[in-house]
Amino acid sequence: MEKALVLFAHGARAASWAEPFKRLRELTASQRPDCTVALAFLELMTPSLPDTVAELVAEGVREIAIVPVFLGQGGHLLRDLPQLVEQLRTAYPALALSTVPAVGEDPDVLAAMAAYCTTALP
Amino acid sequence: MEKALVLFAHGARAASWAEPFKRLRELTASQRPDCTVALAFLELMTPSLPDTVAELVAEGVREIAIVPVFLGQGGHLLRDLPQLVEQLRTAYPALALSTVPAVGEDPDVLAAMAAYCTTALP
Repeated sequence: MEKALVLFAHGARAASWAEPFKRLRELTASQRPDCTVALAFLELMTPSLPDTVAELVAEGVREIAIVPVFLGQGGHLLRDLPQLVEQLRTAYPALALSTVPAVGEDPDVLAAMAAYCTTALP
Repeated sequence: MEKALVLFAHGARAASWAEPFKRLRELTASQRPDCTVALAFLELMTPSLPDTVAELVAEGVREIAIVPVFLGQGGHLLRDLPQLVEQLRTAYPALALSTVPAVGEDPDVLAAMAAYCTTALP
């Protein structure tokens, strides 16, 4: 496929941490059969974002959107991700590489989280 | 009020990071007028969870549910939060203190995140 979505998450030491992200990748892939949907991590877990993009490019992908699966926009999204994206753009000048805001900034995601929070107490 | 929901988040150095959590607190509070809804942080931001619970108890709250506003269940939820909860139960034996799974484990939250991810590429 020529298009890919890369779900970009923080990573953690505990393997259990990645479970929701794997389910998210599967759900997203089921809704975008026209795209390769990959999961990449900033730290502590693999694959890294550069390794993931290298593999996608080797497979013939020409257009990638990176979706930060983060709740808030802190240093990782303000500094680390832009640096990684700049390096990737230099390494793959022919690749159309874009990013979108963090999932936690999406109003529908926030509404779903609020609905969940409200059910925590009877 | 006698009931409170405490939205428990990681915290970060960048102030911008807290914005979605503040909106989440407001949204949740608007849906639960019978509860105090507070935001507490594990690290790097204030108030801490112990300070938040101390204040709620001082205000007369008798029942608190802690909602981890985390995407995945890593060391912070597997170890740090249970330790904090144990300390709080010891400090406030009369308080009904409960926790629920992380927001990222909720199927509706995952579905909303997947819907967002699918829109990242035209």
